Amino acid sequence: MALPLIDVHTHMYLPRYVALLRERQQVPRIVSRAKGDRLIILPDEEADGSTSAGRPIGSEFYEVSRKLAFMDQHGIAVSVVSSANPWIDFVEPAEAPALAAQLNEDLESICAASNGRLYGFGVLALQRPETCAAELKRIAGLPHMRGIIIGSAGRGRGLDDPDFEPIWKAAADLDLFVFIHPHYGIGHSLFPDTGHALLLALGFTFETSIAVSLLILRGVLERHPALKLLIAHAGGTLPYLAGRLDSCVKNDISKDFGLSKPPSHYLHQCWFDAIAYHAPALAALTAFADPAKIMFGTDHPFFRPHVTDDVLDKTTWPSPEENLAALSAMSPEVQKAIAYENGLKAFGIALP
Amino acid sequence: MALPLIDVHTHMYLPRYVALLRERQQVPRIVSRAKGDRLIILPDEEADGSTSAGRPIGSEFYEVSRKLAFMDQHGIAVSVVSSANPWIDFVEPAEAPALAAQLNEDLESICAASNGRLYGFGVLALQRPETCAAELKRIAGLPHMRGIIIGSAGRGRGLDDPDFEPIWKAAADLDLFVFIHPHYGIGHSLFPDTGHALLLALGFTFETSIAVSLLILRGVLERHPALKLLIAHAGGTLPYLAGRLDSCVKNDISKDFGLSKPPSHYLHQCWFDAIAYHAPALAALTAFADPAKIMFGTDHPFFRPHVTDDVLDKTTWPSPEENLAALSAMSPEVQKAIAYENGLKAFGIALP
Repeated sequence: MALPLIDVHTHMYLPRYVALLRERQQVPRIVSRAKGDRLIILPDEEADGSTSAGRPIGSEFYEVSRKLAFMDQHGIAVSVVSSANPWIDFVEPAEAPALAAQLNEDLESICAASNGRLYGFGVLALQRPETCAAELKRIAGLPHMRGIIIGSAGRGRGLDDPDFEPIWKAAADLDLFVFIHPHYGIGHSLFPDTGHALLLALGFTFETSIAVSLLILRGVLERHPALKLLIAHAGGTLPYLAGRLDSCVKNDISKDFGLSKPPSHYLHQCWFDAIAYHAPALAALTAFADPAKIMFGTDHPFFRPHVTDDVLDKTTWPSPEENLAALSAMSPEVQKAIAYENGLKAFGIALP
Repeated sequence: MALPLIDVHTHMYLPRYVALLRERQQVPRIVSRAKGDRLIILPDEEADGSTSAGRPIGSEFYEVSRKLAFMDQHGIAVSVVSSANPWIDFVEPAEAPALAAQLNEDLESICAASNGRLYGFGVLALQRPETCAAELKRIAGLPHMRGIIIGSAGRGRGLDDPDFEPIWKAAADLDLFVFIHPHYGIGHSLFPDTGHALLLALGFTFETSIAVSLLILRGVLERHPALKLLIAHAGGTLPYLAGRLDSCVKNDISKDFGLSKPPSHYLHQCWFDAIAYHAPALAALTAFADPAKIMFGTDHPFFRPHVTDDVLDKTTWPSPEENLAALSAMSPEVQKAIAYENGLKAFGIALP
């Protein structure tokens, strides 16, 4: 019998946010085309004036019924839903805190109406870091919210931005998860004419890896050992590179970071989704990380299957299929832990 | 009893090259300081006017006796020595082909005098790609040379530079290894004030990963299935990201690369050093790659231990120590294969 699943990496563009994207004249935005709406979110896509710029966006990105249909199709009992990138990065600082609060209320309402199927990660107005601790406190009071999602680039100065210190402190004090997720990618200029493939496969994971490494090297995880970071896409590259990172830090004669432990010690404090896409990577992740801190995820509704809209909700999507195949190579205990047990404990929830 | 070791990732600056670096007034160069010579090879280091810019360079970088002392200290029977980065990237195009040939002859001479302890990977004048096939043919005629080392950046246009096609064809036809190694790194601007640590841990491995991915996506490994690529630093990040790369390529609706197989198929054609620094990564590498195509390496003389020069040759270095510790967690068969058996077969050599 298939294991129940809790999906900790699954996105929605909330209706209020979709309306905002439709109004905009520059990236990120949603444009209407004869063949359907297109979502244009990456900086490189803005320069593409063709009608096929960006990617198709249908209601699977913003309607709760479509999220639930996807969950039913794939045996997902509970989803912890987060807004998708680029979140509210582009919003004027004066408007961002109120919008963040509205979006968090929107998500809470959706989850509250879901009969225990949906929980949420909220957003913060990073362009106004002095407002974030208060918003975190408000989020902690919303019954279905379990943390926040935050872009690896922060407000453009990285996550080791000194102004973010109150965010880490508040999240740790309030026992809220901080889900670290890439958006901008790095290395674009080195791989022209590769579609989205290398940006997503490499640029995204590199972005996350740099951000988390800086959080560690600047002492954020030493100062806040209770902080629960959830690192997207199986930790980017860090579970593989952790030993090299330890060695490079220890043997660097040009810089002493003043940490009491090697970087991997702080990585062991972190949580990871299991979006590893093949068994060797998932095996490395389970060998490296705390086995209680790895949780199933899908990245829905990105990476849609190549089918027409009418059959989309009845089709198996590649990410859950590939990540469940990787999971099936693990021991039965690890499979159960990653599939749902770790998620139940982490978020203090029951299967619906 | 300790296993014999063959080290496939170990560098020298040949004396002719050191003399060249001493003459130069800009990066890369060697400068004399009161406390000893300094090697300045990274672009960022040139801006550092302090007397501690770059890193100390002693004769362990260029004297054969020091390489042999390191090998004896660590139980390394045979080393396949390559020039260290940035090779001859900076040399005027008119002078580069002759210099490459001279350096390859220098290395052959050193190996020939070593009683079977040393073999070599030569260099090519990438700034004159039309000369490289002929030089490869010459290298194939040198009894102790087993291939070439090539920087991931190529001549600054990546390794998927169309002008490099004759290099891949010649290397495949001549059964020479192509050792792909980073130098420039990527992401520098994102991690200021981190010494060399993140550049080496992340920037280097990201550079390699992008270069090899492009070789695959542009069809080089499909056109040349016999090409023997040896990918530095345990494949950078690719053994971890291979599943994600496959998925991102397969599901990218914006680009069809026209490959007959997923990217991981071509990665399985590749060889990897075992410089993984911790057991989870080495386990992922051995689970992912062809077990006959993983070989021990040290990255000597980089990452020196924090000891004074007088005891350096009698000190255990961190990279072999950490990588042997990772290896010791593998099965006895895998340990033997990686330690020396794969190397003996790959290079057609005997233990001295």
